Amino acid sequence: MTNATLELAKELISRASVTPLDEGCQPLMAERLAKIGFDIESMVFHDTTNMWARRGTEEPVFCFAGHTDVVPAGDISSWHTAPFEPTVIDDYLHGRGAADMKGSLAAMIVATERFIEKHPNHKGSIAYLVTSDEEGPFINGTPKVIETLESRNEKITWSLVGEPSSTYKLGDIVKNGRRGSLTGNLTVRGIQGHVAYPHLADNPVHKAAPALAELAQMHWDNGNAFFPPTSFQIANINGGTGASNVVPGTLDVMFNFRYSTEVTAEQLIERVLNILDAHGLEYDIDWVFNGLPFLTGEGPLLEATKAAIKDVTGIETDPQTTGGTSDGRFIAPTGAQVIELGPVNATIHKVNECVRVSDLEVLARCYESILEKLLCPETQ
Amino acid sequence: MTNATLELAKELISRASVTPLDEGCQPLMAERLAKIGFDIESMVFHDTTNMWARRGTEEPVFCFAGHTDVVPAGDISSWHTAPFEPTVIDDYLHGRGAADMKGSLAAMIVATERFIEKHPNHKGSIAYLVTSDEEGPFINGTPKVIETLESRNEKITWSLVGEPSSTYKLGDIVKNGRRGSLTGNLTVRGIQGHVAYPHLADNPVHKAAPALAELAQMHWDNGNAFFPPTSFQIANINGGTGASNVVPGTLDVMFNFRYSTEVTAEQLIERVLNILDAHGLEYDIDWVFNGLPFLTGEGPLLEATKAAIKDVTGIETDPQTTGGTSDGRFIAPTGAQVIELGPVNATIHKVNECVRVSDLEVLARCYESILEKLLCPETQ
Ligand SMILES: [Zn+2]
Ligand SMILES: [Zn+2]
Repeated sequence: MTNATLELAKELISRASVTPLDEGCQPLMAERLAKIGFDIESMVFHDTTNMWARRGTEEPVFCFAGHTDVVPAGDISSWHTAPFEPTVIDDYLHGRGAADMKGSLAAMIVATERFIEKHPNHKGSIAYLVTSDEEGPFINGTPKVIETLESRNEKITWSLVGEPSSTYKLGDIVKNGRRGSLTGNLTVRGIQGHVAYPHLADNPVHKAAPALAELAQMHWDNGNAFFPPTSFQIANINGGTGASNVVPGTLDVMFNFRYSTEVTAEQLIERVLNILDAHGLEYDIDWVFNGLPFLTGEGPLLEATKAAIKDVTGIETDPQTTGGTSDGRFIAPTGAQVIELGPVNATIHKVNECVRVSDLEVLARCYESILEKLLCPETQ
Repeated sequence: MTNATLELAKELISRASVTPLDEGCQPLMAERLAKIGFDIESMVFHDTTNMWARRGTEEPVFCFAGHTDVVPAGDISSWHTAPFEPTVIDDYLHGRGAADMKGSLAAMIVATERFIEKHPNHKGSIAYLVTSDEEGPFINGTPKVIETLESRNEKITWSLVGEPSSTYKLGDIVKNGRRGSLTGNLTVRGIQGHVAYPHLADNPVHKAAPALAELAQMHWDNGNAFFPPTSFQIANINGGTGASNVVPGTLDVMFNFRYSTEVTAEQLIERVLNILDAHGLEYDIDWVFNGLPFLTGEGPLLEATKAAIKDVTGIETDPQTTGGTSDGRFIAPTGAQVIELGPVNATIHKVNECVRVSDLEVLARCYESILEKLLCPETQ
């Protein structure tokens, strides 16, 4: 038997769809889905190509979610293979997007085709929400599609996102939530001057240092059963003219919170402002809300996912909420349950990105099993 | 009577001698000095033109020291006059270098001419140490001339530097010393990572913040009768990739000490390293020794300078050691007494630099009076 998932993954990888390009990936998927009864809607917003596909009109709506865009190849000379020429070496398919997430997209399509073949009269609906802007500024991708669906009151019940969630073995980890992300852009104001006349200057680095020290060692919360403790990281700090004899007039600090459901963004902001004020700083601060935390607790989607992984691989999966953000954060606020399940993520965004060929078939079987558990429970 | 100092100052200002250019300023001075019995030595080191001129072979050696180079004009559109076209408006001569320090150079030449006219058989020697690299990297200027003089055991007894020392009125302040200057280039090492996985990263900004806070609030010494307390200033701080989701791998901090004679550079270094070590930082640090502190206490040069200012202007001058570095720091270590006396410094290094025309004549008379007090005391 040819590996149908491998073949489709290769076709997708050979399209150099660096964000926000789609390069024909979605039409390729659409063609396959249309053949098995999906209605296809292309939603283009500015530079971003999105696809909403749906089979059936009833609820519950099971939605595969993913992205066709990939990050740039990076240092081409460090690749052992051409990044956009899918190449199998031993049991690994190499190419940009192999693991994040063209392998998952291929597995979704193959799983859906097999499922429809066996269960043409499944209950509810199957849908696809695919964007070409997940790795980029995430403005014209999933958020705009969700906005469109919300405006016509079209609801997703369960969303399975194909992000590479696995760490060592396919299925060892699924993400059943994500922490919130909040960025602060802080400018501390002082008075520029010459180092020889410090009494005429007011050094914003000196003023800010104790406040930054306090923020860095602050205990924000304990997390909970589903979330690790909230973490604070200073990502950028810049002050000074470059000269050794000038006291800088301002200090710029960019920091980021990854936060649990034990605190709100508003509480974090209040605590930061209290510390800055307690240190008597003069400052401006802008906040960027990157996403609220979300959690998919026990329920049909998590249950089906765990059981499918157990059935197909024998692994007891570990639901986690750690790691970076994903488009799940835009889907969850509509009330949908959201789980991420995809390949091992060891090589994503790196040179020589690859996915285990045998994992592609395993992933397709997991996805198919989840569909069966949710959309035709009578057959279980 | 024409203002001889004004005329020469204008000739010098019309030469656009931006560091390290001399543009014929030194030859102009040399021509005047040669006429009154000076031996002229041009000392060119790489891009820098220096002049050593001397009249007489005996000690003591009184040396006028200064620089022909000027800082760039800066924003031309903000100048009311063309920066290299000397222009008198009301009682002010405008032009780049008017106050720092072509006015002083002109006053030195005129004072010397008048003095020689009256006292052709003065005791000791009169010398000039002039460089075209005082505003720049100070590598091939005064330090190299001093090295040359030292190598042939030629000593300066008293050096009068023409830096603009005055604050409100000509002569209100002279500099009889300068603080030491020590720069530290610190790199704190951490481990770069993704903000979503803080346990895999080690944020150097977080680690450094308490150490920087401690350094910023440290009391280094009390200064003494001649020096203000040692001051520490962070001039530059930079860390981060620019992205909001990356924990920086390193933090770069450049700081500068201006230090009194109550501490040594070695003691400051030891105290800084102790603080960095106490905070468990991993770091690299490079030190740049910009100049040792020096002090010219009571003695013939300070006495003559004070008395000359009092005689000419009626002002009781205030000897200070504050402010930036000057080339005096390279002359003083040879054992010379060093005093800085020059025009009001309000406009130096700024647009519309200017000097009061009447101050040029007053300055020339002060310089001449100092020569008389030191090199022909019998006439006093
Ligand atoms: Zn992805
Ligand atoms: Zn100067």
